[in-house]
Amino acid sequence: MEIPISLDPDNRQSLQSQLHAQVRTLILGGRLRPGAPLPPSRALAQQLGVSRNTVMLAYQRLTAEGYLQSREALGTFVSNELPESCLTAMRAVPPATAAGDALPARRPIPFRGRAHAVAGARRLPLDFWLGRPDPHSFPFGLWRRLLNRVLAGAGTHFTDYGDPAGLPALRRAIAEHLGPARGIAVDPEQIVVVGGCQEGLDLSARLLLREGDAVAIENPAYQGAAYLYESYRARLLPVHVDDSGLRVADLPDDGAALLYVTPSHQYPMGFMLPLERRLRLLDWAWRTSTYIVEDDYDSDFRYRGSPIPALMGLDTHGCVIYLGTFSKALGAGLRLGYLVVPRQLVGPARTVKALHDNGRPWLEQAVLAEFIASGAYANHLRRIRQVYVERRQCLIDCLREHFGEAQVSGSEGGMHLVWHLPPELPRASALQALAAEHGVGIYTLQSGAAHDFGGGPWHEQVVMLGFSSLGAKQIRTGIERLAAAVAAARPTPPPPSTLPGGASRDARGLPVRRPPPR
Amino acid sequence: MEIPISLDPDNRQSLQSQLHAQVRTLILGGRLRPGAPLPPSRALAQQLGVSRNTVMLAYQRLTAEGYLQSREALGTFVSNELPESCLTAMRAVPPATAAGDALPARRPIPFRGRAHAVAGARRLPLDFWLGRPDPHSFPFGLWRRLLNRVLAGAGTHFTDYGDPAGLPALRRAIAEHLGPARGIAVDPEQIVVVGGCQEGLDLSARLLLREGDAVAIENPAYQGAAYLYESYRARLLPVHVDDSGLRVADLPDDGAALLYVTPSHQYPMGFMLPLERRLRLLDWAWRTSTYIVEDDYDSDFRYRGSPIPALMGLDTHGCVIYLGTFSKALGAGLRLGYLVVPRQLVGPARTVKALHDNGRPWLEQAVLAEFIASGAYANHLRRIRQVYVERRQCLIDCLREHFGEAQVSGSEGGMHLVWHLPPELPRASALQALAAEHGVGIYTLQSGAAHDFGGGPWHEQVVMLGFSSLGAKQIRTGIERLAAAVAAARPTPPPPSTLPGGASRDARGLPVRRPPPR
Repeated sequence: MEIPISLDPDNRQSLQSQLHAQVRTLILGGRLRPGAPLPPSRALAQQLGVSRNTVMLAYQRLTAEGYLQSREALGTFVSNELPESCLTAMRAVPPATAAGDALPARRPIPFRGRAHAVAGARRLPLDFWLGRPDPHSFPFGLWRRLLNRVLAGAGTHFTDYGDPAGLPALRRAIAEHLGPARGIAVDPEQIVVVGGCQEGLDLSARLLLREGDAVAIENPAYQGAAYLYESYRARLLPVHVDDSGLRVADLPDDGAALLYVTPSHQYPMGFMLPLERRLRLLDWAWRTSTYIVEDDYDSDFRYRGSPIPALMGLDTHGCVIYLGTFSKALGAGLRLGYLVVPRQLVGPARTVKALHDNGRPWLEQAVLAEFIASGAYANHLRRIRQVYVERRQCLIDCLREHFGEAQVSGSEGGMHLVWHLPPELPRASALQALAAEHGVGIYTLQSGAAHDFGGGPWHEQVVMLGFSSLGAKQIRTGIERLAAAVAAARPTPPPPSTLPGGASRDARGLPVRRPPPR
Repeated sequence: MEIPISLDPDNRQSLQSQLHAQVRTLILGGRLRPGAPLPPSRALAQQLGVSRNTVMLAYQRLTAEGYLQSREALGTFVSNELPESCLTAMRAVPPATAAGDALPARRPIPFRGRAHAVAGARRLPLDFWLGRPDPHSFPFGLWRRLLNRVLAGAGTHFTDYGDPAGLPALRRAIAEHLGPARGIAVDPEQIVVVGGCQEGLDLSARLLLREGDAVAIENPAYQGAAYLYESYRARLLPVHVDDSGLRVADLPDDGAALLYVTPSHQYPMGFMLPLERRLRLLDWAWRTSTYIVEDDYDSDFRYRGSPIPALMGLDTHGCVIYLGTFSKALGAGLRLGYLVVPRQLVGPARTVKALHDNGRPWLEQAVLAEFIASGAYANHLRRIRQVYVERRQCLIDCLREHFGEAQVSGSEGGMHLVWHLPPELPRASALQALAAEHGVGIYTLQSGAAHDFGGGPWHEQVVMLGFSSLGAKQIRTGIERLAAAVAAARPTPPPPSTLPGGASRDARGLPVRRPPPR
């Protein structure tokens, strides 16, 4: 009696595991029927050229699992207790390699979501990619010292569950940072430590949304927010942005379940919402009973004037949920950010976080808490702010040098600016493709992790350029290459002087984009 | 002209910040009206006893923010451009300290969720708390060495976004571990790194559920699952558990959107689902087009017999989503686990993870990948398995010594066992309270992170005792104290010999609980 088994000595799996798996497959596939005898271990060992022990161990395991039965003096048999119906069912259908055989052909999954552009994008040699801190700016030495110090006092922190809302020391440090930095006076209890803004968005959506609820959102908006709300089957109400940010006067009179807004540095356009609109917005939220989700993703970087206090700092009615992140000032690989909720949401936010993932890992929370509390974070911010302001100026200068009066927006803060393309240049997608051919990454709104709901003036008219992760030399080379590529593609580029003038200028002499027509 | 401001030199905030905040409050509160003049900086400095520079800087900031306007030769005034409506609205309502004034009084939040018992529980001196690895078992030395080695090659990992589905090296290591350990042959692409089983539950719910969908679930069940599905407004269909785990024959004929099951070591009861039920379960899932969420939370610990292959290893139709965690074998403070999805869900699972939180932190993923790939994880498992099997035996011996023929279930694997209380002892809640008074933590189903949907035989009849985080001496002291507390509370405890006999015994001579009547 031989059974159709063939073992591969070069396989990563042990011979015993291979034998076990193949016998099991024969049984489940119906080729070895319940009650059928198996070859004696000595015989099978001979057949396969393996030790008898290998066969006996495989048989023992299959017996323990219920596939085989051993009968005294008679030998080993396929178990009679295997349910016939299962074996038949398993035999009757082919393996689930063809899509039609898998479950979803009969039960389509209800999840509908689009992958946003933040993660996993291909990098180009000279990539003006967005929202990335300079890798060289990461405070490695200090971080490593703090890591090792914190490790020494780990106690049960590695083995136990922590507070799902976050390490208390980190929440205290964040609360103390938020007062002077963003004009928000909060209790550490109101803070939930999350894995960056995206998780904050998800938690707030879980708290506030039901299927079909209205969500007011900037147009254009951050893709990670737009696609998230879409995946919750919300009814999206895009509200246009002009060069003062969200057009508050256009908000729906009857409110929404929530409004998503980026007041410090509108994503993607970079405009800052002035105080007057902030106050009107809060008034609207209160009148219409709408929660505001304030995404303050890169507010640490403001290069001109004082930062305006966050909406949450101006709010007196508990209408605002605030999202902050360390992905921009330190690094996205830490996956650390925070949600600040009004007092009445402290309990529900904690619960939703516990159900979500029971909280964040201990170690990096502990290191970050030390990093902030020691004052190192404030120093780090000052240092990179200075670096970024120089890179921003370098990028603007390079654009002017090669393309004349480059019209940009959003350069007063943040880590990217938006270049309004002069009419003689290719449109945004074509320019992006042309640049990519030359190893230079520039981004249309859609590929730059934004979502354009349409109807606005910027579609294909602008590209986004991040300046924070490139040194001055790379910035210069990148823009030079871009200019050369444009020149090569269009034999007679007009000199800078032929660009249209007459646009109004902002305080630094940069042309200012007029509000879009509505 | 004086304005009502008082600065506190002992306050943590700078004098300038305090001044800024107080003027802003006066404006927003309507006490300084648009157009009203402010005192000259010199005068205010004198009034407050601060330097003139402090006042000037505060005025400058308020001017930049739009609250104040400076008019040449005339002085500083409250801005006329503040919207009157906002000021009025802000003045008209008191601060949101009283609950009735906050937004939720008008817009109740739709989230309905209960906090489960895993996180944030109070610890007792001798705590038979559940699912906690021994803090002393954590491989600190090696972990620290790996951390520092990995740090040295960090490159852009701290500053950049990684793959939302997880670090490729870790996903490969997990895939290689799962083959021999759980009989699951998977491609690393099918693995999504998550923050423990809870996040895996949440992601799979997001993929598979819509409001009102049916979810079949064990009764009793893991609380973190039951409350999660409840928070998604699923229709829960509890299915009783007997001493062979889920009663597969009782599953609803028309299936469900998903079934949640813990086949290796039913939570909370500890029973193992035998092969025959596993096959019937898969057959049911395929017939009814139901997705199975297999929570294999502590399958690394099996003390008798071979582990039965996971449901996912037996599945040929892509019906099973598998959840594994490192919280039990290493520690919950790492917040690392994984979701294994059938091939057809690879794309959606990656998208849902990206929308969820853009992936896990880099550093601990990298360390864990090295830890597994180097073989250290397999060694660690062998070592703690040996420790736990001894503690389990110690606990059983102690229970027998003090309470006679202690009837336990679930002791063949996992990190806790369930003690079926003899009739002369107080019922579970009373016993838990009594034990707690003596500093000993034992757990009813509900307080032990389980949820009893009712109708089963175990309500108040059992307590759960975790043995993995206590040394033998602590276990002995804990059970001694418990016995003493029981004896003191009930003057005439019957000797062990009066306990009811006649229950059938399992292979180790332990009485076996009969299946519950249905």
